[in-house]
Amino acid sequence: MVTRTVDLRSDTVTKPTEAMRAAMASAEVDDDVLKYDPTALRLETEMAKIMGKEAALFVPSGTMGNLISVLVHCEIRGSEVILGDNSHIHIYENGGIATIGGVHPRTVRNNGDGTMDLDLIEAAIRDPRGEIVFPTTRLICLENSHANCGGRCLSVEYTDRVGDLAKKHGLKLHIDGARIFNASVALGVPVDRLVQAADSVSVCLSKGLGAPVGSVIVGSRAFINKARRLRKTLGGGMRQVGILCAAALVAIQENIVKLEGDHENAKFLADGLNKIKGLQVESHLIETNIIFVDIKDSTITGEKLSKILEEHGILVLPESSSRIRIVLHHQISATDTQYTLSCFQVIKTKTLTNVVCLFKLYFSIFELVHS
Amino acid sequence: MVTRTVDLRSDTVTKPTEAMRAAMASAEVDDDVLKYDPTALRLETEMAKIMGKEAALFVPSGTMGNLISVLVHCEIRGSEVILGDNSHIHIYENGGIATIGGVHPRTVRNNGDGTMDLDLIEAAIRDPRGEIVFPTTRLICLENSHANCGGRCLSVEYTDRVGDLAKKHGLKLHIDGARIFNASVALGVPVDRLVQAADSVSVCLSKGLGAPVGSVIVGSRAFINKARRLRKTLGGGMRQVGILCAAALVAIQENIVKLEGDHENAKFLADGLNKIKGLQVESHLIETNIIFVDIKDSTITGEKLSKILEEHGILVLPESSSRIRIVLHHQISATDTQYTLSCFQVIKTKTLTNVVCLFKLYFSIFELVHS
Amino acid sequence: MVTRTVDLRSDTVTKPTEAMRAAMASAEVDDDVLKYDPTALRLETEMAKIMGKEAALFVPSGTMGNLISVLVHCEIRGSEVILGDNSHIHIYENGGIATIGGVHPRTVRNNGDGTMDLDLIEAAIRDPRGEIVFPTTRLICLENSHANCGGRCLSVEYTDRVGDLAKKHGLKLHIDGARIFNASVALGVPVDRLVQAADSVSVCLSKGLGAPVGSVIVGSRAFINKARRLRKTLGGGMRQVGILCAAALVAIQENIVKLEGDHENAKFLADGLNKIKGLQVESHLIETNIIFVDIKDSTITGEKLSKILEEHGILVLPESSSRIRIVLHHQISATDTQYTLSCFQVIKTKTLTNVVCLFKLYFSIFELVHS
Amino acid sequence: MVTRTVDLRSDTVTKPTEAMRAAMASAEVDDDVLKYDPTALRLETEMAKIMGKEAALFVPSGTMGNLISVLVHCEIRGSEVILGDNSHIHIYENGGIATIGGVHPRTVRNNGDGTMDLDLIEAAIRDPRGEIVFPTTRLICLENSHANCGGRCLSVEYTDRVGDLAKKHGLKLHIDGARIFNASVALGVPVDRLVQAADSVSVCLSKGLGAPVGSVIVGSRAFINKARRLRKTLGGGMRQVGILCAAALVAIQENIVKLEGDHENAKFLADGLNKIKGLQVESHLIETNIIFVDIKDSTITGEKLSKILEEHGILVLPESSSRIRIVLHHQISATDTQYTLSCFQVIKTKTLTNVVCLFKLYFSIFELVHS
Repeated sequence: MVTRTVDLRSDTVTKPTEAMRAAMASAEVDDDVLKYDPTALRLETEMAKIMGKEAALFVPSGTMGNLISVLVHCEIRGSEVILGDNSHIHIYENGGIATIGGVHPRTVRNNGDGTMDLDLIEAAIRDPRGEIVFPTTRLICLENSHANCGGRCLSVEYTDRVGDLAKKHGLKLHIDGARIFNASVALGVPVDRLVQAADSVSVCLSKGLGAPVGSVIVGSRAFINKARRLRKTLGGGMRQVGILCAAALVAIQENIVKLEGDHENAKFLADGLNKIKGLQVESHLIETNIIFVDIKDSTITGEKLSKILEEHGILVLPESSSRIRIVLHHQISATDTQYTLSCFQVIKTKTLTNVVCLFKLYFSIFELVHS
Repeated sequence: MVTRTVDLRSDTVTKPTEAMRAAMASAEVDDDVLKYDPTALRLETEMAKIMGKEAALFVPSGTMGNLISVLVHCEIRGSEVILGDNSHIHIYENGGIATIGGVHPRTVRNNGDGTMDLDLIEAAIRDPRGEIVFPTTRLICLENSHANCGGRCLSVEYTDRVGDLAKKHGLKLHIDGARIFNASVALGVPVDRLVQAADSVSVCLSKGLGAPVGSVIVGSRAFINKARRLRKTLGGGMRQVGILCAAALVAIQENIVKLEGDHENAKFLADGLNKIKGLQVESHLIETNIIFVDIKDSTITGEKLSKILEEHGILVLPESSSRIRIVLHHQISATDTQYTLSCFQVIKTKTLTNVVCLFKLYFSIFELVHS
Repeated sequence: MVTRTVDLRSDTVTKPTEAMRAAMASAEVDDDVLKYDPTALRLETEMAKIMGKEAALFVPSGTMGNLISVLVHCEIRGSEVILGDNSHIHIYENGGIATIGGVHPRTVRNNGDGTMDLDLIEAAIRDPRGEIVFPTTRLICLENSHANCGGRCLSVEYTDRVGDLAKKHGLKLHIDGARIFNASVALGVPVDRLVQAADSVSVCLSKGLGAPVGSVIVGSRAFINKARRLRKTLGGGMRQVGILCAAALVAIQENIVKLEGDHENAKFLADGLNKIKGLQVESHLIETNIIFVDIKDSTITGEKLSKILEEHGILVLPESSSRIRIVLHHQISATDTQYTLSCFQVIKTKTLTNVVCLFKLYFSIFELVHS
Repeated sequence: MVTRTVDLRSDTVTKPTEAMRAAMASAEVDDDVLKYDPTALRLETEMAKIMGKEAALFVPSGTMGNLISVLVHCEIRGSEVILGDNSHIHIYENGGIATIGGVHPRTVRNNGDGTMDLDLIEAAIRDPRGEIVFPTTRLICLENSHANCGGRCLSVEYTDRVGDLAKKHGLKLHIDGARIFNASVALGVPVDRLVQAADSVSVCLSKGLGAPVGSVIVGSRAFINKARRLRKTLGGGMRQVGILCAAALVAIQENIVKLEGDHENAKFLADGLNKIKGLQVESHLIETNIIFVDIKDSTITGEKLSKILEEHGILVLPESSSRIRIVLHHQISATDTQYTLSCFQVIKTKTLTNVVCLFKLYFSIFELVHS
């Protein structure tokens, strides 16, 4: 009965477009391990240029991009990294920097906007001339836009100041830029300027940009050379990887320009959801494509709400018993957004016991109207 | 002037076929991290069935396949793995099992045929009830066919005996089966029977099978569940990975049947090369698609020989100053093989100073004849 | 000119007593690696009994005691430990659990009394059936008394509740009991009862107990067997270690009974210091032997104050520019404590420029009075 | 009935002498972590001087000495160490360099004399400009004298040549000098000259030198600074460690001069044992204090022989079913040695069934004669 699926679980769920599929089907490829694949090289060159860094490397995932970056900067045993206690690297990457890389994470509290206070960062820094009982801080990590902080963006001023702090203490700065293009668009700052202070950035191609697979890390040539070797160690070196890179090149071309629309849709949806009784969204803080919806109605949990929505084709991620996450992307149109809002409205204006039948009713009307 | 390239550096260099490209262009995909990608699932189900194991997992490379397998079997700190001193895992995978996984490698001498003597394996086993100064052996690794031992195959009898030994001591057995289909075809033993004794196998899709990217590891469901989590940790979890899996499904269909031809070409080429003065190939030991050519002529090194061949479109890998490696695959025809042999013959029957011009002459004739 | 040294830097600075020296000189010893040393065995048996656990192991330091404990409980790759953000393990042990052991630390905020909120602990727990992007929590660590929280004690009720939480989730509980005897004495709870909920405890012999070297870890026999092996791996297995254990046996006999006096001295000193203008001590919170003195006078830093005190034989540790740390122990008498307080009073009632000469004057009078 | 124990299991079993006990009882000590202990400093200064290196560090064991040394030289992730396949570090130290340090061991065959062929070492070296699939060699380890090769000594010429090779390739050279003084005495080469080519040496104080506990590592000041920090990380930093260092200072004074006697006793015993039917000792290769006795009589195993000897006070280590190990040290006199030989002779000239009673008989006579 459901004829429409609105997949809002993440911006990683997009399907490759026709242009991407065509590009993959005709990509010029070679063995990227033995002799670099021409399409991979083209993507890496392009991304390095866009990001304003010397060199780039394609990796299978954002997790590997961050893992390699942290491990290259912290290549010496006994290294510590300062990162946000709410950061993706700390919470959602299996603790890999410690469990695989032996890097000690030192967390600093993330403010609601994704920043960490500069004085807290500075207080956490420990250098090798210090106490014999301290590991050595070698890296600060930022995340921009910050997923767990509702897609909030770090300003170029803040980023520069953290960069200055890092330099002052001889540290490196890595930006988890999984959604750096969202931040760039939202802030109206060219992406290369936005990451100027960073020694490395990992950029996801398969989130907002919509490529099927992959991330790119950028940095100095020396950094990328080490990263390439470590990618091989981790098993991230792939053969005719130009297939995937061809799609990514299309993604850059097609989808960066669409991010602004994603943000508008997010804003629209957030505003609408916040007006629904029992739901709360800090819609005035929506800067990019991520919405956290807090459920203030104790008769329904995040899981239940997700289930009900799913029955009608709307997919969201329950974050906890009282929160769901919604992420906009280029395959969610304004109409999809409006439809999503309508579904929420129906669910919440009726008691839950009546939800299913009402839903079916509403759905029929909606189909009628939009057919 | 060179109109033909015969790329014999490795069986990893194959280009995706038209059927693979078409399959990639039309693959049904989903986010393989959030909710399994249908094409990835199809490939994994198919490979598990072919290999006779409960479950399977697609990974970006053979290196990651081996790394994950060793680390899952050796998940407890203080583990030791017994493996061949000439094995791919020990020599060509960055020492990742130790440098990333903290697993202690204990090497046993590889015989020329890729086996390790059973009594040497048994003597190397150390258990946790033993001396307090010993790590605990938890895994034995075999490689079949064995790349560094000239593509030699381990028999099903040998494999079973190592499996028995492993069981007797409570150890796991992993097979680096990057080229297990070559072994299966060469031995005339069904591949599931060949790996029956193994707890896990990593199988490369982008070597003899010709897929653009990827390997699959197979094993018990419990093993694969752990492997899936570790793949995520390493950054090997990919989003719409069905693109790559679609090509791999075609590869299995198209290319397993072609391996026998690759072996015949290898045998033909090896026999021919061995007859050339100054070259030595143990052609009677050629079982699959790999040829090591030893240069007995001190006036030319492996590197020089590779360079000369490259100028005329024949790509090989110099292994050392006196050895080159040649690998056959489905995109090398019998004609290519014959052409390759002819080139070698010309080079070696003339003094090196004359090589280049003779080559050009020969090349013209060859083109004439085969045009 | 200084004839008296009052070393308040730490309770690790005590010198072995005559009885300890005599015990070391006559200790019965053997090779503790090859065949257990009888005196080491005696200490381990005694400590296991005192702590109410099955078995014990002597280790060279508290750092090794904690490191081994965490690594044994987290022996599986991909483990996460929940511990206080202000805990000794997290801040003062080189990040060894991550940099050496690959264990991912997940910090929870330490309250001022050394506790972590139970709901925050529970919220931080992640199990292997959970999200594929999460490491697996396997351990909770407490610290009792809590050094960085001013020597505050965790009650037996709190400890039991954390133990219940751990059991409920299948986790282990480790107590960093470097100063567990201080807590036991301060709370008036037998030490075995106080750690009843714990799977392991590390107890320092060379802090309040005054032994020259060493800690002991206690736990189940299985835990200690693994710990013994890991101690060897880390290089903590020692030969005729009975020498050190003999002193530790004396320390237990001699000094547990003196801890109450240390606490009284601490309380007296803290009260006195808090009355000095420009200094602030939360003297009502002093439960054991540690005092943090906050300097509210901006004309003097912690470092400067330490220097001035040092010139006159009083050694303290500057913690930061505005804080010094004082630790009482069995070699600081009530008279020493009184003398220390007097020195502080003199320093603070005069301007700093006059400090040195006034000090000398005061010192002469003090010597006169107490001689 | 047994009134005499001759403990030949290892040179680690010696008991502290009266002079050592006296030194420990009166040692001047301080907290070696907070402010260096004066006796520890004195030992470190002395050992640095003796070994001809800039600085030294006391560690609790030879295992920690080697672990720290390897980890400091291989502080960068992805390091490989070249070491003998029969070396103590590889076989008897829990694989700690890999399992704790993530360093990849690359073994080269140990010849019977403890050397590794220079060309094999050189062939194993892999540098960071090399193949992307290789770890980076950063260290070569030698062992002198070589325990598992029967206490054979590496000559200064050989050591120098390995040092040259290391320098040529930008590698460090570490010597596991657990018994370097035995080698120095046996070769008649000053110990500082013998290790001149090494960047670091670990020297055991509790083997031939007879101190109760500890080893020292020596090297450049920069190396020792890093080693001190890593010692803390591993938990090897001890408080009033001067107790142990005081004994070690006596050991150096007392026992280096006795090593020659140990070697003579070993030679005497080896010659005697080799003449016994059913036993085989390569007595012409005995250079220091270690004897491997191969049992050629299939009616008795190493374990059984050890048991029988033990009943009569002679302790040896069974190495395998057909080999026992005997180690001489300063608490085994020439008379003990002669007695030991006599016991062996009795055991072997009679059938095993009669051994026990004969033993008692012989023992009575021996006591009579030597009383």
